[in-house]
Amino acid sequence: MSAACREATDAVAPRLVAEQRKDGVDAAVAAARRVVTALLRTGGGTGTDMDVVAAELNALADRLTETAPPVGERLAAMWRGQGVTRHDPVTGPENALAPPLHLDGKDDGSVEGVVTLDLPYQGPPGHVHGGISALLLDHTLGVANHWGGPSGMTAELTLRYLRPTPLFEPLTVSGRQVSVDGSRIRAVGEISAAGRTCVTVEGLFINKHLPRPS
Amino acid sequence: MSAACREATDAVAPRLVAEQRKDGVDAAVAAARRVVTALLRTGGGTGTDMDVVAAELNALADRLTETAPPVGERLAAMWRGQGVTRHDPVTGPENALAPPLHLDGKDDGSVEGVVTLDLPYQGPPGHVHGGISALLLDHTLGVANHWGGPSGMTAELTLRYLRPTPLFEPLTVSGRQVSVDGSRIRAVGEISAAGRTCVTVEGLFINKHLPRPS
Repeated sequence: MSAACREATDAVAPRLVAEQRKDGVDAAVAAARRVVTALLRTGGGTGTDMDVVAAELNALADRLTETAPPVGERLAAMWRGQGVTRHDPVTGPENALAPPLHLDGKDDGSVEGVVTLDLPYQGPPGHVHGGISALLLDHTLGVANHWGGPSGMTAELTLRYLRPTPLFEPLTVSGRQVSVDGSRIRAVGEISAAGRTCVTVEGLFINKHLPRPS
Repeated sequence: MSAACREATDAVAPRLVAEQRKDGVDAAVAAARRVVTALLRTGGGTGTDMDVVAAELNALADRLTETAPPVGERLAAMWRGQGVTRHDPVTGPENALAPPLHLDGKDDGSVEGVVTLDLPYQGPPGHVHGGISALLLDHTLGVANHWGGPSGMTAELTLRYLRPTPLFEPLTVSGRQVSVDGSRIRAVGEISAAGRTCVTVEGLFINKHLPRPS
């Protein structure tokens, strides 16, 4: 493929996760992420009156809860149509736990995204929690299966931690489906920083899905 | 051990994670968790003016960021003394990503905690994300190593998903160290719901630690 062609292809690489909007609930969730990080960056005893902060946040939670639909209704709504990719804890624009990671599909069948993580995702000093790497990679393999062929539920994951994964630096997270044998789907992936692999994953998935709530 | 003795022992089971306080930054973080969940339970298009919510949260994040210490200073502070257990994304009372999971040490050398997860932790419809289970279990093995013997950094994790793990129901998360061979530490753990095992984990850890920031 020529460089020009590759550039054109990259420009239209399918976005495999929900678009992040700058308005509505997405903007509120993005702001909530800022609060989560700021609370951790502030910590206790820095002169901020945390009783006032707690009161403000509790009042907001009360207001939101009053207008929220019953959870069964909400579950049905979030599993309809494009809602499917809006709420997960890795890529979801409606989920403040998600960094969020944006994954694009590549011509070679793989998926890839770049993300920089802050203090909420810390494990060892200044580095990403091993369980957070597992969370990002499990989800990325799931998206890679959707992109590359049949998808399913995680049956087994093996993670190998080769070197510490840094906070505050761009991380490349990638995955690809490697085989489908009946209902057994295998996928692999990795997280790298500055071109060096930090964590690898091998996953076995089973081609079945839980029913969507209705 | 007699039932009475077991009860007495349970009553003083060491808390292996930071105590959750009802004031200060802990209360603010607990309120932030309520906001994260309420945003996901509300979603878009439910009549709440999300522009107002976003503006309030952004104003709060700005205020907190203004009084936060430089990140290097904060990192050094959070790794001193008891701060160590206050900020992680699984048990940390200062981290709104953490459910939080409370882990206690048992006489038999294992650690255990019970947690109920809401929509932010969802993977398949109405069930816990496989990567969230991995996050909880990786951290639980780390705490089990601290409780049972030498601890270290995660080198390898193998997770097996036996059945879907439900949201909205109490989950028991447990772990224990099983062997130490030189610098190689092995630990196992599981997540169960209503007495049935949902996910198991085997972990290999290496007895070394990254330097604490100073």
